[in-house]
Formats: sequence, C-alpha cells, structure tokens
Amino acid sequence: MVVVMSPQATETDITAVVERVATAGGEAFVSRGVSRTIIGLIGDIEQFHALNLRAMSGVSDVMRVSTPFKLVSRTNHPQRSTIRVGGAAIGPDTFTLVAGPCAVESREQTIEAAQMARSAGATLLRGGAFKPRTSPYAFQGLGEKGLAILAEAREVTGLPVVTEVMDAADVRLVASYADMLQVGTRNMQNFALLQAVGQAGKPVLLKRGMTATIEEWLMAAEYVAQRGNLDIVLCERGIRTFERSYRNTLDISAVPVVQGLSHLPVMIDPSHSGGRKDLVVPLSRAAIAVGADGILVDVHPHPEEALVDGPQALVDGDLRALAAMVRQLPPMLGRQGPG
Amino acid sequence: MVVVMSPQATETDITAVVERVATAGGEAFVSRGVSRTIIGLIGDIEQFHALNLRAMSGVSDVMRVSTPFKLVSRTNHPQRSTIRVGGAAIGPDTFTLVAGPCAVESREQTIEAAQMARSAGATLLRGGAFKPRTSPYAFQGLGEKGLAILAEAREVTGLPVVTEVMDAADVRLVASYADMLQVGTRNMQNFALLQAVGQAGKPVLLKRGMTATIEEWLMAAEYVAQRGNLDIVLCERGIRTFERSYRNTLDISAVPVVQGLSHLPVMIDPSHSGGRKDLVVPLSRAAIAVGADGILVDVHPHPEEALVDGPQALVDGDLRALAAMVRQLPPMLGRQGPG
Amino acid sequence: MVVVMSPQATETDITAVVERVATAGGEAFVSRGVSRTIIGLIGDIEQFHALNLRAMSGVSDVMRVSTPFKLVSRTNHPQRSTIRVGGAAIGPDTFTLVAGPCAVESREQTIEAAQMARSAGATLLRGGAFKPRTSPYAFQGLGEKGLAILAEAREVTGLPVVTEVMDAADVRLVASYADMLQVGTRNMQNFALLQAVGQAGKPVLLKRGMTATIEEWLMAAEYVAQRGNLDIVLCERGIRTFERSYRNTLDISAVPVVQGLSHLPVMIDPSHSGGRKDLVVPLSRAAIAVGADGILVDVHPHPEEALVDGPQALVDGDLRALAAMVRQLPPMLGRQGPG
Amino acid sequence: MVVVMSPQATETDITAVVERVATAGGEAFVSRGVSRTIIGLIGDIEQFHALNLRAMSGVSDVMRVSTPFKLVSRTNHPQRSTIRVGGAAIGPDTFTLVAGPCAVESREQTIEAAQMARSAGATLLRGGAFKPRTSPYAFQGLGEKGLAILAEAREVTGLPVVTEVMDAADVRLVASYADMLQVGTRNMQNFALLQAVGQAGKPVLLKRGMTATIEEWLMAAEYVAQRGNLDIVLCERGIRTFERSYRNTLDISAVPVVQGLSHLPVMIDPSHSGGRKDLVVPLSRAAIAVGADGILVDVHPHPEEALVDGPQALVDGDLRALAAMVRQLPPMLGRQGPG
Repeated sequence: MVVVMSPQATETDITAVVERVATAGGEAFVSRGVSRTIIGLIGDIEQFHALNLRAMSGVSDVMRVSTPFKLVSRTNHPQRSTIRVGGAAIGPDTFTLVAGPCAVESREQTIEAAQMARSAGATLLRGGAFKPRTSPYAFQGLGEKGLAILAEAREVTGLPVVTEVMDAADVRLVASYADMLQVGTRNMQNFALLQAVGQAGKPVLLKRGMTATIEEWLMAAEYVAQRGNLDIVLCERGIRTFERSYRNTLDISAVPVVQGLSHLPVMIDPSHSGGRKDLVVPLSRAAIAVGADGILVDVHPHPEEALVDGPQALVDGDLRALAAMVRQLPPMLGRQGPG
Repeated sequence: MVVVMSPQATETDITAVVERVATAGGEAFVSRGVSRTIIGLIGDIEQFHALNLRAMSGVSDVMRVSTPFKLVSRTNHPQRSTIRVGGAAIGPDTFTLVAGPCAVESREQTIEAAQMARSAGATLLRGGAFKPRTSPYAFQGLGEKGLAILAEAREVTGLPVVTEVMDAADVRLVASYADMLQVGTRNMQNFALLQAVGQAGKPVLLKRGMTATIEEWLMAAEYVAQRGNLDIVLCERGIRTFERSYRNTLDISAVPVVQGLSHLPVMIDPSHSGGRKDLVVPLSRAAIAVGADGILVDVHPHPEEALVDGPQALVDGDLRALAAMVRQLPPMLGRQGPG
Repeated sequence: MVVVMSPQATETDITAVVERVATAGGEAFVSRGVSRTIIGLIGDIEQFHALNLRAMSGVSDVMRVSTPFKLVSRTNHPQRSTIRVGGAAIGPDTFTLVAGPCAVESREQTIEAAQMARSAGATLLRGGAFKPRTSPYAFQGLGEKGLAILAEAREVTGLPVVTEVMDAADVRLVASYADMLQVGTRNMQNFALLQAVGQAGKPVLLKRGMTATIEEWLMAAEYVAQRGNLDIVLCERGIRTFERSYRNTLDISAVPVVQGLSHLPVMIDPSHSGGRKDLVVPLSRAAIAVGADGILVDVHPHPEEALVDGPQALVDGDLRALAAMVRQLPPMLGRQGPG
Repeated sequence: MVVVMSPQATETDITAVVERVATAGGEAFVSRGVSRTIIGLIGDIEQFHALNLRAMSGVSDVMRVSTPFKLVSRTNHPQRSTIRVGGAAIGPDTFTLVAGPCAVESREQTIEAAQMARSAGATLLRGGAFKPRTSPYAFQGLGEKGLAILAEAREVTGLPVVTEVMDAADVRLVASYADMLQVGTRNMQNFALLQAVGQAGKPVLLKRGMTATIEEWLMAAEYVAQRGNLDIVLCERGIRTFERSYRNTLDISAVPVVQGLSHLPVMIDPSHSGGRKDLVVPLSRAAIAVGADGILVDVHPHPEEALVDGPQALVDGDLRALAAMVRQLPPMLGRQGPG
C-alpha cells in the first residue's frame, strides 16, 4: 500500500500516519518530495484497511499495490489448474466444449439437445432448470423437475451436467442432481450463494458479472475458494458497454489477463456474449485462438420454439461447423481438442 | 410490439409471423413499405415473447413498445405513493432524511450515530449488520448481534430501523428486528431474495444495481410487488461509468424519469454515489432540488475509526450543514421537510 | 510518480530505475517491503514519462500522483475565476443563463428565439451556425449566413453571442462574428482546434467530451490555456453510459469536483444531457442547487418545426417556469441570479 | 421509421402525424392496438427527420428501422471490397500486417523499425509524425520532418506508408508524403477532417472512436465516402469500458458485425487496444481467427527509449512469434497471409 499525502500535509500528519501503521504491526517508509510526501506500507493489508488511513488529516490518496486475492492467485500457484467434472477435464491441456439448451423446457427437447451436444464433441452438458429472468412474468424454469430431466439426459448421453443455482437455500438440492454448479452473472456478488457453493463439494462454474471488473470477479472466486473449494472454472460471458449492436460485448482480453493472474481455467460463452446466433462461430474461433480453455454454447433442436434465448441457439448446420472447428483448430494451435 | 422484417423477407415469412401471433391470441397489423415490411402486434406481450419471433425466418428485429412492468407502473396508478415505516413517511409530500452508520460496529458507535441522526432531523435510522464486501477478507458485519444493537438504538432514539438483508434465508430473522428491509445494489437481481422480501410483510428499500438500467430496476421492484408487497421505496446510489474521480456516478436524471414511470417514492444516496465526504452536501442539495423524495446518508461519530466506508461518513459540522439544508430547502421548493 | 516493482524484481532492476531517474535530473526514493519494493520519484514528471520506466525490467506499475494540469489548476490559483463575455459575467458570484436555438435555421426563428431568451433572463445568446451531425445527410447548419443572423440577433436583443466552431480553419471567421467560441463535445480532443481557439482572443466555452474523463477535460482546457487564453468556461453536457432512457447521463458530481480542481467556471447543459424537454426544468434546478455557475438551454419558438433537437427545446410555459426559477432559486442558495 | 403514439394520443394527433408525413412525400400506415397506435412510415428518412415528429402532440417515440448509411453499406454492395495501397492489398482474400513505430522519433529509430516491420512480413509501414496527446506538455510528434523520415523509410524498405492526419488544414501536406491517411480515434467525428480526407485522393484508414457505436463509426465512413472516396479501411482499436486492467477493451465482436453491415475491410489494432505488450500476440491470434482483414502493430527497436507508448511495442522475439503466426494461421483458416 502507498499513502500519498496532500501538498498541505504537515509533519504532524505524517507522523500520525506512521504511528497508526505501527499500531497495526506494519512498517511505514516515508519518501519526501518537493511538493508531496509518499509513505509506503509493508505488512497485513487487511489490517491497514481497518486503519482507515484515507480519512486521516493530510492524506490525499491510498493506493493498493499488492494482489488482493490469494487462494486463486497464480503468484503462489504458478502452474495452471485442471478441473475435473465427471469424466471431463477443463484446463490448459485440452479445449473443452460445453453445450446444451439454455433452459430445460421438456424431456424431449432436453434429451434431443443433449444428443446434439454429444455428437458435436461436447464433454459436458449445460442446461438451466432455475432461470434468472429480468421479468417476473417470464418463464422461470422447471425447477426440480428440470433437474430430474437433466439427470436423465446424463443417463442417456453419459455427459456430466452443469446447471445454475440461484439461491443458497437450493444448493443442496441442485448439488444432488448436478455434477457442477453454475453461479450466473447476476449472482456473481451474491456472497451467501458463493459461500454455499464453496461448501457443496462440487466443482463450480463462475460466470463473470456483466459489469464486474476482473478484480471483483477473482475476489468472487476467492469467496468460493475460502470455503475450501478450489475446483472453480471462470467463464467470461460479455460485459455491458455503450454498444447496442449486441446484447453484451465479449471481453476477449480478459482471457489472457485472467490466466496470468489466476491458476483457474477460463472459458468463454459466445452465445450469451452476443445474443446472436451469427456471432457464435466467429467468437468461438476467437476463443480458441486467444487461448481460452473451452467454450459454452447454447444448442436447441427447434430454436424457433425456444422459451428462452432462442435467437442465439445453434442448430444443426452451425453446430456441425462448430464441432469441426473445435476438433481441428486447437491442435493447430498446440492444444488438444475435447475428449 | 413491433416486428421489423428484413428486406429479404418473403410473403411466406410474413404470413408465418401473422399466423404464429394469431395462435397466441394476438392480432398482427402488416405495414408494407418500399424496402421493408413492419408488423405491429397487439395482445399479451409475455405470450409474444414465448413465440420467439426473433428467430423466425425473415425477421430482422423485434421491438417492445408497451411498458413491461405493471404493478409498480404509474400508468394504472397515476397518484404517487407514500410509504410509511413506523412513524416515518416517504412520499411526494415530505422530504425524508435517513441517516446512520454504514456498518454497525459496536453498541456505542451505533447509538452515538443514531443520536447524531436524530439531532440532524432524520426520521429513519439506517445501519448495516450484514455487509456485502467485495473481499472475503474484509469485515462482514456483526450479523444478528448487529441487529440487536440496531433494535436498542431504536429504543433509545425512537427512530424506526432500515437494514440490509443479503440472503433469502435471513429475511425472517432480519424482519424480526427491522422496520424496513434493504436490498442492496449487488443483490438487485437476486430474484430469490426479491421474492422473499416481497412476502415478509415489511416495507422494502430497493437500491438500484450499480449497472442496472431503469427498466431492470423497475422490473426488480415488480418481483417484490408481485408477491403482494407494494410498500417499496427506490433508491438511486450511483452507476458504474468510465469516470474514475468518484466511486460511482450519481444518475440524477433517474429521479424525475422514474417518478414519471412509477408511483413509488425515489430517494438518493449521496454518500455511496460518490464515496467522498466532500460530495455529500452538494449532491444532497441537488437531490432536494431535482425532486427526490429523500436522501440516505452515512454518519459516524469517529470516521477515522470506521471499519467500512469511513471516507464518506459525515461528522458534526457537515451534518449540521446538511440538517439545516434539509429543514430549509424543501419548503422553498414547495415540499415539507422531515418530521 | 511512484514506481511499483514486481515481486520478482532484482537489485539490478532497482538500481537501473534509480540511475535512469538520476539521468533525467530526478530523485528516487527506494522503499523496500516484504514482497515488493516501491520507488518514489521527485522531479519533472514530463521528463519521467520520456524515460518510459514502465518498460524497464522488474517494473510492475508506474503511478502518477501529482496533478497533470497546471494553468487551469486551482492549486496555483485558489480563487475561482469570473469570465466576462460582452456585458455578461460567468463565475462564482452569479448564476448565468445562456439560451437560444440549438441551430440557426432562419432569421425569423433566430430573432424570435433570442427575444424569448432575453425575456427569460438570459444574458448570453447561444445558437449553432456550424452543426456537427452524425450523419452527412442531416442538416449541417447555415454556416457564415447563420453567423450573420446571430450578429443581427445580438443587435436586436443586446445579448452577446456564443456559437460553435468545428474546424481550426474556421476560427478566424467565427471569431469575427461571435463573442465567445464554443468547442463541442465531439471536438474536445481536436487539438488543432483547441490551439486555434486558444489564440483567437475570445472567451471559449469548452464542452466535455461525452466520454471524456474529468482529467482529459481539464487537459483539453490546458491546451487552450497554454496558448495564452485563460478565459475558458467548462460545460458538462452528459456522458455516455449504459442507460438508454435518456440520450446521455448528466454527471452532476462533476460540478463540485471540477470546481475543486480548477479555478474555471463550470456550467451545465440540461437540454443536451437528457435530450428530453421534460428533464430540462428538474435538471436545471439540480444544477443551481449543486453550485453550477450557470446553465445553457435550448429554446425554439416552434419546436415542432425545429431541424435539430426539437424534442428538447423549451417553449413558452416551460421557459417562463425556468426563468422564474433562475431568478428565485440562486438567491435562496446564496448566489446572485443573472443580470 | 416507426412512430409509436402514446396511450393518450387522440385521433387528431394521429391524423396530424399522417398529414405531416404526406407533406414530405411519404406514406404512413396506421396500426391501432388496444392501448396504443403505431404508425409505420415509408419514404425518405432524412425528410422524416426534418419533420421532427417526436415533438408532435401524442407521439411517444420514433424508431428508425432502415439502415442510415448508404455508400458504405453492404446492402447495395454485397461483395466485400479490397483496398489497394501501393503494392499492398487489404481485403477478404488476404491477411494484412501493418507495422511500424507508434511515433517517428528519429531517422535511425524509424528506419530500423521499418526494417523490423518488413522482416516480419508487413506490407505497409505505419508511423506517426503528428501525435494526438492528452497533455499539451507531452511529445507532439516531429510534424513535416517526421513525414520526410517516413518517406525515406519507404525508399529503403519499399513499404508504402500510412500516417495520421489530425487537422483538415494538414491533409494536403500529409497526402504529399503518405500513401494512406489515418484518421485517429479522437478525430472520428471531426467532420471537417473526414470531408477533407474524402477529397484527398488517397486511401483512408479510419479508426473507431474509443466510445463510438458501430453505427456512428459507419456514419463517419459515410462522410468520407460522400466526398467520392470509397477506399476506406476500418480499424477497431478498443473501446472505453469500466474495466481498468487494460487501456481499452478490444471489441472483437465488431469485426463480424461490421463485415456484415459494410463492404469495407476491417482491421484490428491489438497494440492500442490493450496498451500492453503481453496482449499483442494473443489478441492478434484472436483477430486472425475471428476473420479480421489484418492487424496494425507497434514495433520499436528500443521500446525502453520510446517517447510514446513504449510499453506496448513489440521487440524482436515477440515480433518473430507474431510474424510466424501471421504466415501460418491465416492459411489454416482458409485465407492468404501477407505478401
């Protein structure tokens, strides 16, 4: 941490900062300049936060320089992690395709979509039984009935299942059906939920909040990790910007940056990023090329009838193109494809 | 709703849209232009969403024109509402001051802050027992012990209490101590929580998500209302923008716009908007002048020792200036002050 | 400036930074911590930028701590400035109303609007002869013919004229007709234009770029000031955010923050911020209350016929309400009204 | 265009809209619904804008549905264009590498960088003689002396030169040295400059404004095209968002979207997007994979000494990696590499 004193700060102000830091067991290094004095702090950063130095007389700014996340940081864990979900692996050595319907609508639709996913080379099945919807009048998902359908689709296809949980009270129920728990973009800072999934004994897929900074996203992962669960996969799914041509703006730079900061795998969701079917294939190609550890795509046997997000679901032709690309492109770039 | 067909759309495409709308009990009006055809839809908009028209052949865009929220809308409820919390009223006839410590840290600090709040003319006491924090290593609040301290502060000062609840599972507990339940910015789309507070039988203070559109915010209020609770107060607390000089950017235009769209009261939180003490008084003046129904401010007897958000808490001198302004300015602008 | 070394930085890296700083005539203060070393720099910051320290081995970040603008800064010029334009004053002692048509469309419309402006208490007439338009097919303004009409409106009403100039090549021409030169939001970083208006010998109205940070805005003012012209008035006119209910989001917090950083007057344009007539009066009230030095509003005798931005122009009733408010509210808040 | 009437609109209001549209030679189609009436307009959209329908009584919204750009649109020009600059081609059949120093600092540095660029497979040399800088105290470029150095670098390497022009008054001068004129991000809506480069008889590289929507960007291109110059290459260079880990956020989705809307080539600038050297190679891989028509990268023989943007310039090792990728990856994806 660095404390920047204002030009008007007095010697008494400076001494007061140094002494307060000392009471917290820290060390303070004073650098005097022509117009300002800067004080560098060494010690426990959380202790320093509690000192509330910013409110002291003569202090103009307090800047943090050390990394605020620990367990998910790559600093103490330089090797990138591989997370296993059933038979599927997500990590630096493979490129993982997760596919399935955005929402579980019926037994038939889900099983058909799951078979499409498997044929396309997916090693993990996605599907929503609990759906977060902006409007209370929109379809909210089938709930436990949907979970049972997903479990049946797993029986039929052999693919492990990842599905969203929206409330800490539902974690146990969802974990009893699913192989991996998804925390969605609107719940990225639902801290009770993060702590509950951290204790559930299942791998977690943590989507980035649509307006979360990378630091906030990694701090959310730290909440999960702190409860003893390091089986976390991060998923970039588009951020909110001023651009209105697509639903959200895929932040592709986040992939190499997060892989540099954290040992956790990072996937991309090209379906939700754009909300447009015509962007799924080009953004998936970009995801592979930039070094993402996998992608999550929506598939639907009959997108025209989809209750949720039909416009972005892939159908047969596109899905075959995607499947071919997922088989061929990663090896060209020095990485194994799925399965 | 308006369906815009692409220039390449065929007659078959147009007929298919019209027929699908008819199956949902709606009417479709076809307007043919030189280069495009536009189809206007009349009927139940939620039904139309389920039709997934955007995915049909020849459709280039689907635009919604009717208002998506009903219970909180001013269309069917032209008179602006007044919400009562204990003895306090929030609504178009008064200007309400809510004050208190950002976090309940101790019995002494809370009672001292509550007395500061009452002296300044506040009619409602705010204070956090459960604190949402970006970092799992930061102070998370005193929990139920904090709720008991708030209840004691109510005894001492006579002020009803509003406090945040972060998880649906805690709603019953928090409601047993508090007079009003706050849903914070990070939980504005925690739909399980919205539904739980909608059933708790207490008024709700719903803060705007820091990156929520006005429509999303009103839809979140609709979730609460749909469970039978229309005692909702909205609170604008700054949105996330590119500007880095303040923590968030107060969206003051939201006040008249939301008051035009909804009958619910709208308050402003000048403390969290800027995260800077020096902005609290000018932004409070702007809040009164723009027509907000009240403000929420942080006070702390000793901001230098605050565990959370000390830099934005008002101390004695500022608080007296604020109190004087809250007494004098609203009547000048044709509205009663607090109390 | 503060140089933050990475945890992997070696002693050689640290020495290299210190020596490079010395070659530029600066001093470096080394603070060694448990995991990182921080180096504080004292000296000429522009020299330090040229050193490109960020690219040196072992450097993790370089942070600037001193203020980058000098001539417009309040640090060396604590008293807030008053700018005079013809008989009108803009500064801390008055509240200035600038009004007029968004675009000069005809002699009749302009003179009628100018008379409306004067009746409402405006002391400065605004009007656009050169109009920056997103589309090349939209009305681009009357050019010099429009300037002549504005000069005639000045004759008739006695109000000095402020009008936009879009290209450095037009500065001399526009300055020969106008009393104050406006640099618009799209040209805030047109540096050739900034330098040209800095040499034109007329006061300058510098609108904030719709996505400019406060620092970039003040640096743009510094470009003007550097050419010898300190008669600059800043104007906040809404920033681009994710919110779609209004054209732009008025950043009202910018007013007290910029007034703290710079001695220049700061106005608000409530017409362009929202792009909605119904927001002009509430945002003008907020502007007065927050402490702005004036407002700029669009008026039009027949908004239904306006070629540009008709939806936001005030007509008679609203304008009278605004005029009454501009007379009454500033004195209540301890400031003189216009004129 | 679609006019949405408010629920309160009267028959007189509706008739007034229809008649006004007729006066402009347009046709209006009225669709009456249960709560609202919608009017579709067919005819000349610019004429309709001049009607200012939004300000008419009973009108709640006016929505544009046809495409606002014409000359650069793909609608009337379905085949994607190839632009030639000296011997270099930019378009759908090749992948073009443009490389060079961010700023021309000296004869030696520029020629050395140009030779690095050619060795890496670049077919076009970039370099700035006029530099737009946020601060007036920062290095502003060598001006005409820099142009002469670039011309000499062209002699030595055979590479045609693209360089930025910042002011309409300089277009003739810059065009006398350069093979292609760059309009930078801060000048994307400097309409005088756009018109001047449109008349200069040289191809234009039009960078996206850092906060411009795709529609505004294509309208800026339309300004150039309207002056008779269709030799335009678009360049995405990162947009401004809330994320602070990189200078700007590369909007990779813009590439397929713009290629769908316009026939013009679209390149990516991975150096300026992130402002970080470590992102150049991964973002360049993503650019190739997503289908961009080329990339623009900064190279510098001695980045530690660079006066501008040294932290993002590639040096030998990285540049060789990039060069190998640019040779190998496009053919794998069905496109020729440079040269």
